[in-house]
Amino acid sequence: MLKVADPDFAERTRASFARQAIMQLLGAEMREVEAGRVLIALPFKPELTQQHGFFHGGATATIADSAGGYAGFTLFGPGESVLTVEFKLNLIAPADGDCLYAEGRVKKPGRTLTVCELEVWAERNGQRKSCAVGLQTLMRVNDRPDIAEAG
Amino acid sequence: MLKVADPDFAERTRASFARQAIMQLLGAEMREVEAGRVLIALPFKPELTQQHGFFHGGATATIADSAGGYAGFTLFGPGESVLTVEFKLNLIAPADGDCLYAEGRVKKPGRTLTVCELEVWAERNGQRKSCAVGLQTLMRVNDRPDIAEAG
Amino acid sequence: MLKVADPDFAERTRASFARQAIMQLLGAEMREVEAGRVLIALPFKPELTQQHGFFHGGATATIADSAGGYAGFTLFGPGESVLTVEFKLNLIAPADGDCLYAEGRVKKPGRTLTVCELEVWAERNGQRKSCAVGLQTLMRVNDRPDIAEAG
Amino acid sequence: MLKVADPDFAERTRASFARQAIMQLLGAEMREVEAGRVLIALPFKPELTQQHGFFHGGATATIADSAGGYAGFTLFGPGESVLTVEFKLNLIAPADGDCLYAEGRVKKPGRTLTVCELEVWAERNGQRKSCAVGLQTLMRVNDRPDIAEAG
Repeated sequence: MLKVADPDFAERTRASFARQAIMQLLGAEMREVEAGRVLIALPFKPELTQQHGFFHGGATATIADSAGGYAGFTLFGPGESVLTVEFKLNLIAPADGDCLYAEGRVKKPGRTLTVCELEVWAERNGQRKSCAVGLQTLMRVNDRPDIAEAG
Repeated sequence: MLKVADPDFAERTRASFARQAIMQLLGAEMREVEAGRVLIALPFKPELTQQHGFFHGGATATIADSAGGYAGFTLFGPGESVLTVEFKLNLIAPADGDCLYAEGRVKKPGRTLTVCELEVWAERNGQRKSCAVGLQTLMRVNDRPDIAEAG
Repeated sequence: MLKVADPDFAERTRASFARQAIMQLLGAEMREVEAGRVLIALPFKPELTQQHGFFHGGATATIADSAGGYAGFTLFGPGESVLTVEFKLNLIAPADGDCLYAEGRVKKPGRTLTVCELEVWAERNGQRKSCAVGLQTLMRVNDRPDIAEAG
Repeated sequence: MLKVADPDFAERTRASFARQAIMQLLGAEMREVEAGRVLIALPFKPELTQQHGFFHGGATATIADSAGGYAGFTLFGPGESVLTVEFKLNLIAPADGDCLYAEGRVKKPGRTLTVCELEVWAERNGQRKSCAVGLQTLMRVNDRPDIAEAG
């Protein structure tokens, strides 16, 4: 249903993710890449917590934003880049687990704008608990980061 | 106009922020604390960037969420804690600068829910450029993090 | 999976909807009521349009907000009422059709807060086209509308 | 600070608003039009209410969406039109008053996307009470409504 512009999208997506330095700082890994869908994992470490010892909401937001952004990116052509226009996240339960997962799924692709659904869950002993749901608007831009502007 | 429940709110707010381990990982600092307003600064370092070398949107979201959460927290009493129910962020320009600042301001305090406005800007050579605006809903809970649940 | 507090929830939900005068002004009808899910239909009439002749985004928002609010309400007990804390809607295509449908689905029920997913689509000649997706936060309150306050 | 592309923007804005049939159904009036700012008023009538006799959240959303959309539209050129990409609204108090006002203000104009702040308040006996705050993303499109698509 979703149209792919570049058969090498998975490789290109993983290469771009590898250039997001903050993902290495956090320890996030891109686990799955399909056309219009990306899964990112973030193993627990104490450095990622808020005052109660759970994953900080910012960690949740960071991998959710990245999962959605790259879900959109999988549908773009070579020489195109992605900007997050906006996102909204409902934190529906504490992010308490051994690993946090964020999935971005393209809900509506578009020439200029793409809308993604975001979901984040925590796993402990194989048990999955939903932590956050969100919506995100992406913009397709030519890959000139020096002049890129959201809008 | 905003009613303070605890005269020692600033100290309590800074102490809680100091327990957010992720802030140390990122290098974020709580710069200003007033009743209903908090300012957080995040000096640039290459570890915080996305694929184009700007601050990652997740870094923006993390300090914005924290600034808003603690802005609400300043109005709470001892033994009360804060949960982010949801937030929404519009990324209106690349976060490109020597330092990123996030300000949270209480727009509507409430017994159960508090609504905050969020603003994030980057500074370079004293020039300020707005990067993001947002809205956030917070929930006041008894400080029992082990049982806390968003809802 | 979703726990019902009142076996007569469907009747109570329809009765409350019938008291929303704006729904009669617009011509909206509550079509389906299940535990945690409500479907509202809004047949086209020229009085509902924006400047291009499509359903106005406000009509979309009105039935989406109502569908989500009542989806949450189905899970509440007698003597409890619902307030919309906030909602966010992505308008992904023009609302162009003979009838507009809004579905609210409870994603996360809670003692105080409930989170719903919203979806709106238009139908023409049996063809369904998605127009909007959204997220909504609801608050459960005692049914004292005179004192009810969001927060 | 905001650049106007069409000196006749106020007239063009009012003419477009006059074509939004739903505004007449609700009884909404465009009261003020400036570059990047629009104020819409909605006098109370029982047909606009929810189950508790207050303005329905959908009425709030409808005039807020319109106020923001037209605030952006004031900055566009002749032959350009506006689409709401998304908006988010926090309903911070019951919309209880003789008249509801929605103000849209351009926060960030852009070639493709424009971001607006939304505020809604109710007035009774000259007393103003804030009911809702929001953020909205708009898209500038060529005025070909038959082919217009959000994205």
